[in-house]
Amino acid sequence: MTLLLPDLELIKTIARPSPTKIVLLVIDGLGGLPHPQTGKTELETAHTPNLDRLAVEAICGLTNPVSPGVTPGSAPGHLALFGYNPLCFTSGRGVLEAIGVDFDLEQEDVAARGNFCTVDEAGLVADRRAGRISTEKCAELCQLLDGWTIENIKIFASPVREHRFIVVFRGEGLDPDISDSDPQQIGVAPRSIAAHTPQASRTASIAAQFVARAKATLAGRLPANMVLLRGFSRRQKFPSMGEIYKLKPAAIASYPMYRGLANLVGMEVLQAGTSFEDELATMKQSYADYDYFFMHRKGADSAGEDGDFDRKVKVIEEVDRALPSLMEVKPDVLVVTGDHSTPALLKAHSWHPVPVLLRSKWCRPDKVSQFSESACSSGGLGQLPATQIMLLAMANALKLIRFGA
Amino acid sequence: MTLLLPDLELIKTIARPSPTKIVLLVIDGLGGLPHPQTGKTELETAHTPNLDRLAVEAICGLTNPVSPGVTPGSAPGHLALFGYNPLCFTSGRGVLEAIGVDFDLEQEDVAARGNFCTVDEAGLVADRRAGRISTEKCAELCQLLDGWTIENIKIFASPVREHRFIVVFRGEGLDPDISDSDPQQIGVAPRSIAAHTPQASRTASIAAQFVARAKATLAGRLPANMVLLRGFSRRQKFPSMGEIYKLKPAAIASYPMYRGLANLVGMEVLQAGTSFEDELATMKQSYADYDYFFMHRKGADSAGEDGDFDRKVKVIEEVDRALPSLMEVKPDVLVVTGDHSTPALLKAHSWHPVPVLLRSKWCRPDKVSQFSESACSSGGLGQLPATQIMLLAMANALKLIRFGA
Repeated sequence: MTLLLPDLELIKTIARPSPTKIVLLVIDGLGGLPHPQTGKTELETAHTPNLDRLAVEAICGLTNPVSPGVTPGSAPGHLALFGYNPLCFTSGRGVLEAIGVDFDLEQEDVAARGNFCTVDEAGLVADRRAGRISTEKCAELCQLLDGWTIENIKIFASPVREHRFIVVFRGEGLDPDISDSDPQQIGVAPRSIAAHTPQASRTASIAAQFVARAKATLAGRLPANMVLLRGFSRRQKFPSMGEIYKLKPAAIASYPMYRGLANLVGMEVLQAGTSFEDELATMKQSYADYDYFFMHRKGADSAGEDGDFDRKVKVIEEVDRALPSLMEVKPDVLVVTGDHSTPALLKAHSWHPVPVLLRSKWCRPDKVSQFSESACSSGGLGQLPATQIMLLAMANALKLIRFGA
Repeated sequence: MTLLLPDLELIKTIARPSPTKIVLLVIDGLGGLPHPQTGKTELETAHTPNLDRLAVEAICGLTNPVSPGVTPGSAPGHLALFGYNPLCFTSGRGVLEAIGVDFDLEQEDVAARGNFCTVDEAGLVADRRAGRISTEKCAELCQLLDGWTIENIKIFASPVREHRFIVVFRGEGLDPDISDSDPQQIGVAPRSIAAHTPQASRTASIAAQFVARAKATLAGRLPANMVLLRGFSRRQKFPSMGEIYKLKPAAIASYPMYRGLANLVGMEVLQAGTSFEDELATMKQSYADYDYFFMHRKGADSAGEDGDFDRKVKVIEEVDRALPSLMEVKPDVLVVTGDHSTPALLKAHSWHPVPVLLRSKWCRPDKVSQFSESACSSGGLGQLPATQIMLLAMANALKLIRFGA
């Protein structure tokens, strides 16, 4: 018999409720690569006196969200930090986005993430994001696609943000095991949607009919004259953080997908504005009501994906400036880390391990005095699977009883 | 499929007998936390010239007995050091204590660990250890409870040490899957014993009758006027160290539970006195007869659990002073480590990784020159599962052939 650590069944047996509180601050895409001219990463370039002071008081290390060498998507990166092995717990993009915009997804629904995009006269994708149309425009276009019925399957279309939307298929006999139409590149035609198994062929056909009808409906509505769909999926039942960790967890995240993820693992998703100050204010107001807070900052990842080294530095500095305000609540355990690396030099998520600091009264501090990739690589946590961070946070909050006789 | 290393089936295929000898010295509860005034742990505070010299010649690191964040009981902590994954091999406290006092446990017996305790007039636990009554007193009280028969189940009670004793239930149809009566805290009533499954309900009822009858029998015998039972369990079959490692292993430990553990994995348990000098003398006398010695020192853990930082420092210094005597046998491989951390500041076992040193002619020494938590965190072994220590010891003793063509 083999057991994968952390084993959620084991944790259930040793977790106990306690008054201590854990705050997990995720700086999305935190890890980076050194700038060729300075030899310093984004985090090392940023002026971060508050993070550095925390590093002195904390135990530091580097996490691997999935495995060394594996570049995680946002969902596995976060699930790992919540202690869910992302190789065992997967969730499609469609489901995550749908839950994130509070769409009331039913058990048998199949959801997909959509992009409004631009295709040229030859039908090739010219812009996968239709010039990042406004959320208002997106909502207007969704109304054109919403409420259709194809072969007794009811179809819903709802806006997410900018060019992003969701499509939900509802009815009997659906199967999400079908391929994306989004080719994830420009200059090529959208892919035809294919069933991966015979049972999914009807669903593939219905999705393809939806795409064809959307193309006809959007014709001439430049720049948003076509749709791309990906991540067809059905809601999977996850054991909740309440069940596993005996926690009452809250999520403070402004981006829909992260709210969706938090909802999937049973966190209460609090209403917050869009700035970090708004999120901090929400956390402080509700600090008495929960014992675990997941706080999410998106900007560093977006800057990294745009290849904007300097903007990523600035986002990190903004987070640093807000830290004294966060620390006013005096969390028993504070974890600061990222869900994955997004080096501006790669303009994409990457496999590089992610700096982490864990500060508590019982953390056994190491000699790391700067929060950076290079300093954390000699930290007391060593290099560890991100899935173990949650266990360490629980231990440091004295929320785990001992294992075995 | 996943493979858990160390995999005992794999080790069986590569282990071979050889004349070299391995000594594992376990300083129970070795790891600690820094004293707030000095910033140094118990081990860092102790004057340990001999351990430090060994560290220079050795390769060092930090072990995680079960997983980062998981606080191990003594049994999983030791099983890991013997190379048995403690998540796969579990043994209840009742069985371990029973084997440790050489009780001849039969296959179907259900054993529990008992405490004589003090309850007040309201029946609430006032002292879980009845003022740590003497072992003689314990033996006298056990005679009052021994030899009963309840519903055709024969009951044995035997003293362990001080307030500790064992109860063994023997007869047909027993099932150990029942809850503890020991609430593990004071100020509350002992818990009623409940069956976790319908099949165990008769056993729960018999155990509850035993407790009620013990209460009546002990009434007025302050401070030991009640019993608390925990760790109901049945002996599980473990593959022996002889089978797996082709070793002839011996255990030198004065505390019953550790003797029980050693017996479970097939070690010969040698008779030793209670002091470390006695244990060393036993080891030297029998050095020719075995090729693996597990030596156990309890005192550091007890001092840690009592919150006595200074006494834990002294115990470590005592072990250090005895090391030159141990080294006279010139073991081919010496491993010094703990089964878990027991920081005096926490007054309990903890999840913090444990310093380890491994010294052999072939160990590839690192730059660690002090045996301490902080120095070992930059040691050549890095941070590793404690289950891998046994493999490394075997390798360093040249007792493993190569794997694969």
